[in-house]
Amino acid sequence: MERKPYEFELDKIKTLIKERGARRVGLQLPEGLKTIATEIAAELSKATGVAVILSGNSCYGACDVDEKLARIVDILFHFGHTENPFRKSVYGKTLRGKPVLHGEIPKKVVFIELRSTVDIKPVVESAAAALKGDCVGLVATVQHVHALSEAKTVLARSGKKVVLGKSNNLKYDGQVLGCDFSSARVPCDEILFIGSGSFHPSGLALYTGKRVIAADPFTLQISIFESDDLRKKRYAVIARAMDAKSFGIIVGMKSGQFDLNEAIELQRKAGAKGLDTHLIAMDEITEAGLMGFKIDAFVNTACPRLPEDFVHFNKPVLSINEFEVAIGERNWESLWQ
Amino acid sequence: MERKPYEFELDKIKTLIKERGARRVGLQLPEGLKTIATEIAAELSKATGVAVILSGNSCYGACDVDEKLARIVDILFHFGHTENPFRKSVYGKTLRGKPVLHGEIPKKVVFIELRSTVDIKPVVESAAAALKGDCVGLVATVQHVHALSEAKTVLARSGKKVVLGKSNNLKYDGQVLGCDFSSARVPCDEILFIGSGSFHPSGLALYTGKRVIAADPFTLQISIFESDDLRKKRYAVIARAMDAKSFGIIVGMKSGQFDLNEAIELQRKAGAKGLDTHLIAMDEITEAGLMGFKIDAFVNTACPRLPEDFVHFNKPVLSINEFEVAIGERNWESLWQ
Repeated sequence: MERKPYEFELDKIKTLIKERGARRVGLQLPEGLKTIATEIAAELSKATGVAVILSGNSCYGACDVDEKLARIVDILFHFGHTENPFRKSVYGKTLRGKPVLHGEIPKKVVFIELRSTVDIKPVVESAAAALKGDCVGLVATVQHVHALSEAKTVLARSGKKVVLGKSNNLKYDGQVLGCDFSSARVPCDEILFIGSGSFHPSGLALYTGKRVIAADPFTLQISIFESDDLRKKRYAVIARAMDAKSFGIIVGMKSGQFDLNEAIELQRKAGAKGLDTHLIAMDEITEAGLMGFKIDAFVNTACPRLPEDFVHFNKPVLSINEFEVAIGERNWESLWQ
Repeated sequence: MERKPYEFELDKIKTLIKERGARRVGLQLPEGLKTIATEIAAELSKATGVAVILSGNSCYGACDVDEKLARIVDILFHFGHTENPFRKSVYGKTLRGKPVLHGEIPKKVVFIELRSTVDIKPVVESAAAALKGDCVGLVATVQHVHALSEAKTVLARSGKKVVLGKSNNLKYDGQVLGCDFSSARVPCDEILFIGSGSFHPSGLALYTGKRVIAADPFTLQISIFESDDLRKKRYAVIARAMDAKSFGIIVGMKSGQFDLNEAIELQRKAGAKGLDTHLIAMDEITEAGLMGFKIDAFVNTACPRLPEDFVHFNKPVLSINEFEVAIGERNWESLWQ
């Protein structure tokens, strides 16, 4: 089987299936890995006789467990994310410490972190050459956190001082999520991110205001993300939203994204400013879904994703902090806190 | 308030809110009507003091109740569809008489049918001129079923014999859904459909094999749908699927579309033919969602929609009957039964 260089932990999974006497299991994989779902299903069925149901829904994080699928299987194996019992937004607010999963679901969900098996030394050596400052904040997605101490050694050899932060809400030192960059809020000159894609490094640049060097251990590619351009785009969106007479306040209905209290609180603040507001419950936030409503602008209390994702929407979609700036409840200086 | 010509039954809704002492209600409108959701919300809040949450998710039928929203409100008003306690597919199979909504949800959901208030006489008179045969099967969406007796009178005046069928699973004589055309399975030369859009008339043409005249009472437009082209496209898709080595069997996870038993039964049939099959649980069936999997073709046990919707997908997506034909479990002659 030709697989991406991750630890799929199939032996652990087979053992769990047998131990729990599971007759039907679900597999939930992130987008890029759905391509091997059928191979894993076939291997598990062959080894244990279990019936497998694959999740065909999108999957962007541990906040996005396929609860409906979990209800109809004995075990749901959720790949690519760490268990995240409490959500904390990028904005540093703990969301009332609400458990992400409810009822019988938590007992059924097993998180498989998909640790990478590639050597990160070569790409960290390349990245060291791209660093400008003496002190670097080192972060990674869960796939590479176990290799951060090795990365630290490589960087120290290049004369760099390395700082590893930790989020109160995440499992590992230096780990970041698309909605939690707090382990990058450390005293440093710039950030080195180990992982794939532009989602995390552009978010890191946006929220920390620092230069971010992204190093992909699979492709060996080094990319640089500067915060200025990203921030300017957001300022333009906020400015457009300041003319809005009506706001739709989006309540995310996925298990780990639901925060009705926050939405109601924002509605109260906007109402006090004489704005017309409407609460909108949504699973996936799409432009088509929002544009049907006669509403001037939106604020997103669900998965923040990258505000970048919403830049090309026809109407402004703001984060909570951006919304508070737009309605005069927060000053511009504290926008990225 | 400038509203489309439907009975929104706002007085009934306000009375219900007051009678039940509802403090928070949800509104779920079909795509084309989301534009007036905010006006309705404002009117209800003003009249009763109720807090309103709008559903921002897609809504294609009574099988597609926003259950997550229903859970967090006292009443969910679902517009545009009739209550549909039992689902029956286009294929005539009763799906084990499973109630569509579960637990506390049914008590919370109120269906507002959105009856049209336009005069249908003018468009029926135009349609009469486009009819070729002497005997016509008359059908409509729920918005116009109350006017079918009037339409019958108009057609009788033009010398037409009118037949009104009834589905065992639908509330009204002559009513059709996108997944239930059985009221059109009547002895007649052609079908007259009263309603908007091409979704229902093309489905009617596909499944009855008859010429369909669609008459839109709002736009006064008459359109003709012939079944041959639609059927030829489906034959081509089935032929492509006959080369598939692996099939994904889609299990719809929306409340009224779930039928795991049917999916398992299809898996058994395909397995007996030596095909590789995988069950895939999905809420919305999208090309992006399916194409991530290493699977040659798919069969859809969820909302059948129009098979036409899937024609442009990169890989074949079959209905249940089409799949049975493709794997040699059904003959071509009984495909549209």
